[in-house]
Amino acid sequence: MAVRLMESLATTGPLAELFSDGSILQAMLDFEAALARAESRLNIIPKQAAEAIVAAAVAANFDAAVLAQDALRAGTPGIPLVKALTEHVHKKDPAAAGFVPWGATSQDVCDTALALLLKKAQPILESDLGRLQDALRRLAVQHRQTVMLSRTLLQAAPPTTFGLKAAGWLAAIHRSQKRLHVGFQESLVLQFGGASGTLAALGEQGLAVGKAVAEELKLAYPDAPWHAHRDRLAALVCACGILTGGLGKMARDISLLMQSEVGEVAEAGGQSRGGSSTMPHKRNPIGCAVTLAAANRVPALVSSFLSSMVQEHERGVGGWQAEWPIISGVIQSTGLAAASMAEVAEGLTVDKLRMRANIEATQGVIFAERAMMLLGEKLGRDVAHKILEEATRKSVEQKRRLREVVGEMKEAREHLDPAALRELETPEQYLGVADEFQKRLLASAEQRSSNSVRDRGKE
Amino acid sequence: MAVRLMESLATTGPLAELFSDGSILQAMLDFEAALARAESRLNIIPKQAAEAIVAAAVAANFDAAVLAQDALRAGTPGIPLVKALTEHVHKKDPAAAGFVPWGATSQDVCDTALALLLKKAQPILESDLGRLQDALRRLAVQHRQTVMLSRTLLQAAPPTTFGLKAAGWLAAIHRSQKRLHVGFQESLVLQFGGASGTLAALGEQGLAVGKAVAEELKLAYPDAPWHAHRDRLAALVCACGILTGGLGKMARDISLLMQSEVGEVAEAGGQSRGGSSTMPHKRNPIGCAVTLAAANRVPALVSSFLSSMVQEHERGVGGWQAEWPIISGVIQSTGLAAASMAEVAEGLTVDKLRMRANIEATQGVIFAERAMMLLGEKLGRDVAHKILEEATRKSVEQKRRLREVVGEMKEAREHLDPAALRELETPEQYLGVADEFQKRLLASAEQRSSNSVRDRGKE
Amino acid sequence: MAVRLMESLATTGPLAELFSDGSILQAMLDFEAALARAESRLNIIPKQAAEAIVAAAVAANFDAAVLAQDALRAGTPGIPLVKALTEHVHKKDPAAAGFVPWGATSQDVCDTALALLLKKAQPILESDLGRLQDALRRLAVQHRQTVMLSRTLLQAAPPTTFGLKAAGWLAAIHRSQKRLHVGFQESLVLQFGGASGTLAALGEQGLAVGKAVAEELKLAYPDAPWHAHRDRLAALVCACGILTGGLGKMARDISLLMQSEVGEVAEAGGQSRGGSSTMPHKRNPIGCAVTLAAANRVPALVSSFLSSMVQEHERGVGGWQAEWPIISGVIQSTGLAAASMAEVAEGLTVDKLRMRANIEATQGVIFAERAMMLLGEKLGRDVAHKILEEATRKSVEQKRRLREVVGEMKEAREHLDPAALRELETPEQYLGVADEFQKRLLASAEQRSSNSVRDRGKE
Amino acid sequence: MAVRLMESLATTGPLAELFSDGSILQAMLDFEAALARAESRLNIIPKQAAEAIVAAAVAANFDAAVLAQDALRAGTPGIPLVKALTEHVHKKDPAAAGFVPWGATSQDVCDTALALLLKKAQPILESDLGRLQDALRRLAVQHRQTVMLSRTLLQAAPPTTFGLKAAGWLAAIHRSQKRLHVGFQESLVLQFGGASGTLAALGEQGLAVGKAVAEELKLAYPDAPWHAHRDRLAALVCACGILTGGLGKMARDISLLMQSEVGEVAEAGGQSRGGSSTMPHKRNPIGCAVTLAAANRVPALVSSFLSSMVQEHERGVGGWQAEWPIISGVIQSTGLAAASMAEVAEGLTVDKLRMRANIEATQGVIFAERAMMLLGEKLGRDVAHKILEEATRKSVEQKRRLREVVGEMKEAREHLDPAALRELETPEQYLGVADEFQKRLLASAEQRSSNSVRDRGKE
Repeated sequence: MAVRLMESLATTGPLAELFSDGSILQAMLDFEAALARAESRLNIIPKQAAEAIVAAAVAANFDAAVLAQDALRAGTPGIPLVKALTEHVHKKDPAAAGFVPWGATSQDVCDTALALLLKKAQPILESDLGRLQDALRRLAVQHRQTVMLSRTLLQAAPPTTFGLKAAGWLAAIHRSQKRLHVGFQESLVLQFGGASGTLAALGEQGLAVGKAVAEELKLAYPDAPWHAHRDRLAALVCACGILTGGLGKMARDISLLMQSEVGEVAEAGGQSRGGSSTMPHKRNPIGCAVTLAAANRVPALVSSFLSSMVQEHERGVGGWQAEWPIISGVIQSTGLAAASMAEVAEGLTVDKLRMRANIEATQGVIFAERAMMLLGEKLGRDVAHKILEEATRKSVEQKRRLREVVGEMKEAREHLDPAALRELETPEQYLGVADEFQKRLLASAEQRSSNSVRDRGKE
Repeated sequence: MAVRLMESLATTGPLAELFSDGSILQAMLDFEAALARAESRLNIIPKQAAEAIVAAAVAANFDAAVLAQDALRAGTPGIPLVKALTEHVHKKDPAAAGFVPWGATSQDVCDTALALLLKKAQPILESDLGRLQDALRRLAVQHRQTVMLSRTLLQAAPPTTFGLKAAGWLAAIHRSQKRLHVGFQESLVLQFGGASGTLAALGEQGLAVGKAVAEELKLAYPDAPWHAHRDRLAALVCACGILTGGLGKMARDISLLMQSEVGEVAEAGGQSRGGSSTMPHKRNPIGCAVTLAAANRVPALVSSFLSSMVQEHERGVGGWQAEWPIISGVIQSTGLAAASMAEVAEGLTVDKLRMRANIEATQGVIFAERAMMLLGEKLGRDVAHKILEEATRKSVEQKRRLREVVGEMKEAREHLDPAALRELETPEQYLGVADEFQKRLLASAEQRSSNSVRDRGKE
Repeated sequence: MAVRLMESLATTGPLAELFSDGSILQAMLDFEAALARAESRLNIIPKQAAEAIVAAAVAANFDAAVLAQDALRAGTPGIPLVKALTEHVHKKDPAAAGFVPWGATSQDVCDTALALLLKKAQPILESDLGRLQDALRRLAVQHRQTVMLSRTLLQAAPPTTFGLKAAGWLAAIHRSQKRLHVGFQESLVLQFGGASGTLAALGEQGLAVGKAVAEELKLAYPDAPWHAHRDRLAALVCACGILTGGLGKMARDISLLMQSEVGEVAEAGGQSRGGSSTMPHKRNPIGCAVTLAAANRVPALVSSFLSSMVQEHERGVGGWQAEWPIISGVIQSTGLAAASMAEVAEGLTVDKLRMRANIEATQGVIFAERAMMLLGEKLGRDVAHKILEEATRKSVEQKRRLREVVGEMKEAREHLDPAALRELETPEQYLGVADEFQKRLLASAEQRSSNSVRDRGKE
Repeated sequence: MAVRLMESLATTGPLAELFSDGSILQAMLDFEAALARAESRLNIIPKQAAEAIVAAAVAANFDAAVLAQDALRAGTPGIPLVKALTEHVHKKDPAAAGFVPWGATSQDVCDTALALLLKKAQPILESDLGRLQDALRRLAVQHRQTVMLSRTLLQAAPPTTFGLKAAGWLAAIHRSQKRLHVGFQESLVLQFGGASGTLAALGEQGLAVGKAVAEELKLAYPDAPWHAHRDRLAALVCACGILTGGLGKMARDISLLMQSEVGEVAEAGGQSRGGSSTMPHKRNPIGCAVTLAAANRVPALVSSFLSSMVQEHERGVGGWQAEWPIISGVIQSTGLAAASMAEVAEGLTVDKLRMRANIEATQGVIFAERAMMLLGEKLGRDVAHKILEEATRKSVEQKRRLREVVGEMKEAREHLDPAALRELETPEQYLGVADEFQKRLLASAEQRSSNSVRDRGKE
């Protein structure tokens, strides 16, 4: 199993397995095997040679530790792998060894292996995002009418609903998932250009071989090799960055709502999750912490990738070599954040009573705007404003409800309908179009999401 | 004129004007005017009030310096602007002053103003990208058969064509332009949510008002306010980052090709561009330098934006406030890079003879791969490999052409066709499918580009 | 006045003035004047020429807008400035014009101008940091015994004191100020190397001229020109990054303590600071927001600067040109954060009662660790642990105080001294060495701070 | 052996071993053991318990894979480790289990473990930096008089010496090493604060225990716990960033000098280092590529760390959890860059003849400044300027040497000493104070370096 204690909060899980040495090795070997098969199909190399190469292209035949060491001297893991594969083939079939790899260069091996790994990462990521969205949809529907404080600059503000809040998280994650999908589509392409991107060693058969290899590997075939043009990967990396930002926003919100003093929601505990042996009352926001950690790390990795795009001529010095750890870090951190927030959303406890109690605790001053709008219609905004300014000050100072204070003021008594005054602080009556917004967000997320589920089904 | 000497290489030009104080002020005021008009149309505020507000909403009426000072105390330029506008309206029509702004919050003003500025930035950026692509297309076509060294890790490698190189730049920039287009589409949306994103102050009319304002401003109307969900802007910022990476790659390539020792291309001089009073032979790669400077700065700005996405609840503390300088920096730097590379591409001098001479200077060793492939067919790859290893070593040590050295070797003489040997170092004959790749890249870029030109026509 | 509405929360204030066009121009001209004076002193150029140059070197003589435009074509503001200065001198004294600038290159002008600007930035920054530290020291002393909750992962944890908290902020900022001081010391050096860093045009007098210029400008004279070695500036930029991180931590803490639901501290209001016309109860954490915005932006600027250090040979293409906006942004944002937090600390209201009430509201469960330590001594940790687990669960479920629940348990009654039980939830008795830590932090900060004040006095 | 194929160019080597699971585990256990010993010495826990804990605190007793999984649920590897250690101790000595860990919290374990790892990283890094500096010193001395082109914006400029260039690299790396040293000194401190940073569970003995633990571990004892104040680590991380920038600058320079068309220096080949089986002439700049990759990655990691400094109250949500992979990445990448450049410098081949040939190839136009200075003394700068402008243009167009062209011009013949004209293009005569600068740089680097060698000896 792939373990990295130092990065346990950043890389644990199925994506860590995907980027483990064995998995990477196999992806590189899969390219070699596909190339051999394709060239054999096109009668460029003997069928027997292809078979020998395919037979040898099994990760277990190779020692990742040795290859890593050699990679450092070669400047790429591709060169030592090809050398080791050639030696392996040679042992079985010396004649076949000369065809490893015919016409490809080490960057072709590495870049295509990366595309293959990303192809496997996509369903893992999308599945967690699917779980997360399902859970958020449930929360949004279930709490469509659950009123709570909105908070601007961390200060209490007029009410909203938890349904709208959840729908907002959902829609943002949904939009990001669509961008991620596009990013994957862009990135799942074959890289095959030979020494200098012209496939010169294959004469006029370069295109045919390329298309055949792409077909073998179920990768798209691009217009041309992209050895020094890394915008497709950049699009994927950026999509991860945006998604992680959205997940981080949700995690920040939840961790704030989980504060002892707020107490409106809680991550699920259990299985030593977020617990503390000495303080059983404590439910730490662990899923949020993992996600916020990702949101702290991923943006800078995106920056690194973008900086690294400035790659010289047909193969860069430094830019290309920087990419692997960046991409592996971005995909794993993003995936872990998605999985964590899926777990958080699925297990989230919502305390409606506490939400209402927190509204109550504001003494009604968050409804000052409402009172001012009501009075303003009668008295003009200026006058209304002055009245409310005085009323809210009193309410805060005297720790009395706003509606009481307002009710004692002459102008308010004259111009405000007693019923309106009584209902002034009823949160349900000051939600504006929260419900419409929630529905619109859900509808957008719903419709396209089913598409994307269908898309996933097709693949 | 907007001047910033400290940032002259980062912000000079039409985009600097766009982000000047007057322009920003007007964008904020345009929102206020549109809101007033919309609310008047829907009979929410008196027609007369709307007219007074519209009349007052002219940048020249306000003092940006004072507003900037006050913004720092209010935490946003929106609050002092509304206050100043209210005062201005009050002078003309006291009754109207109470309707500034009816139901909107200061973030609505700022975010929508930003969308309006971005709307104006789009054609400026796209026009320069259009010029750049046109120039690259011409270079790609014109130099379809211009052979030159490819270079991997900055070392000479088998030949390519300048046409393929230019087509590669073109296609990358074309893909990025499409992403940029999507980013703009995502970002050109109204923000309108009131104090807490529910438009509560407008009762049930929130949606209607929002749609009307969006219509007035020719912005899209989103599913819901996005006050604390910044992924749309992030998508635009990322698209700029990817584009700048591609422009930077082109700039790096050109600055390397312009080195005194390489001398294959040159930026246009003239008008004190890149010149040096004491060294008239010098043509500094100024356009490239400006672009590479952008490629050094923009990625980190992208990172900042992504980090800032973690915004608390209905309005963040720190994240939202960080955005403006980031976006303004990203758009201006990206735009300046695009304009610079357009100028570079349009004025680029290509020295075919020097390109060929640089190939010649390698003594033919870059064709070792070719010789090995030819001999390998007859002698097996292993034997061929050893022969060529010896031959290239001799060629380098003795400073003799590879084909001469190979020609003296017994196995080569026996198995290599004299004609093949004679032609071994002819670059035109070792280009593989460079031409096909060039055509494919051009075709992709061509077709969609004309669409996007048409799109621009429609707007 | 220098205004930038788009960056009003990032650049307003005295540092914005410092980086205004006039100020930058004058700094560049100050270098030219100092060079002329130094060369005249050393009899390298005629005294009269020097006088003419000095007389012309006044910012008001030049048009920053034109220079910015030309800078973009020249790749640096240095070239057009020298040209304009030469023209200006020529008008008054044609013979003198030939000596502008004798032996220096445009990078010498720009880099030294930057050093001069930084020299002026230092006291502004240090003064605000001084104010901030004075205020924090007062808070730390005054609230040495003010108990409050500590909070880990935003969950209530055993008590601490506000004095320790303030001392923690103070000490971190103090350490950062010392790093900043070192960074300034490293950066306040002359750059003077001529065309290629050898001062060849000055023959053997290069060193003498350099030293004289450094003396004129009160800058340190380095071992050699640093045109392509930017580590000194990097050290300053990093120091700003670390400082901003510390300021951001303090701002995050305060904004969290200011939450409506927590309410333990508040930024000063007044002068339309952080207020809201409709909600007088609201005191937005504006100083914190401005600071957190800086903490969102500055790290990425640091990253940009570090990336840009990879500068080619004797003058880079892209790296050098990227620097100015980065440095200007870092210094201004850091300075604004420091000024904002100084204002926050100076005006901070601390609500001791609310702090105690928030402790009370935890029902004593934060003292479970304490009870366990007490019981553990008698019963062994294992047994004690189980007892407390049960007790805290009951306390939370039944909303009863922990000490009551514990008091009802047989083992506790037997083994816990009644006095100990009574005092179990007295925060003052479970502060460990908080007071010692506070004193140690204050002592460290005190002692060196007075030095640094003295240092400032000397300059 | 620790292998990470995906990061083979970023983490291979002794530092990868240091950050391997076993090593991390042991560091955490070393803290536990030291704590037990210290508390036993101070009679806080029984001697026997301490012995049992120390005996159990051996990495081989634990399963990193299981701990990593659990860490993800606990939000830190500290909690599961303590649990596993307790279980392990319990098996041998149930009574001792209750004392694991007495008074410490999981962050104390993790942070102190990190300090211990950094303590081991320091000599590895400093040793490679020592080798690098020794090699650069040799190069600087040996090539004190080796003339070569300087290059500004990648264009040929007046000559310099390779000795000065090497001394420039040396001095920058030397300055950075000193900053690194300071960064390590700041970071090698104990973290020990208990649940909320007051060591409340240890009553009045907190300080005594802390000092004893620090002594056991040979770490400094800070004024107070730094659980949420991360500036010390930030200082180290920044120092790595600055150093990597300097190494990257050197690597960029060398990779440019290694270009086929420049050919002035070469990295050592051999041991399949940078080679290519088909092109034996090729020596790829592998050490430079690895270093430039680090210079692409590290700055963004620095940015992440600085962003993560904004940690909430007494233990952050997200910021703290983000740190480990960042620090591990920074230290490993920096170390690998240092080791790579040490190898590059030690094996660097310098081609003096090619350096001179590249000067010659400029036809003398790089000496136009010199001619102008000489003529300017006689004819005035204006006239001289015009003459040289014409001369250099002719020289470039007609491909003739500048001195010939100048020699044909009337004014030059009259006013230029024939000897001066003959010697115009002698690089040795136009080096200004290159030699003085080289000596000054060497002297600075020399003197302090021997100190630091002595320092290393002491440790």
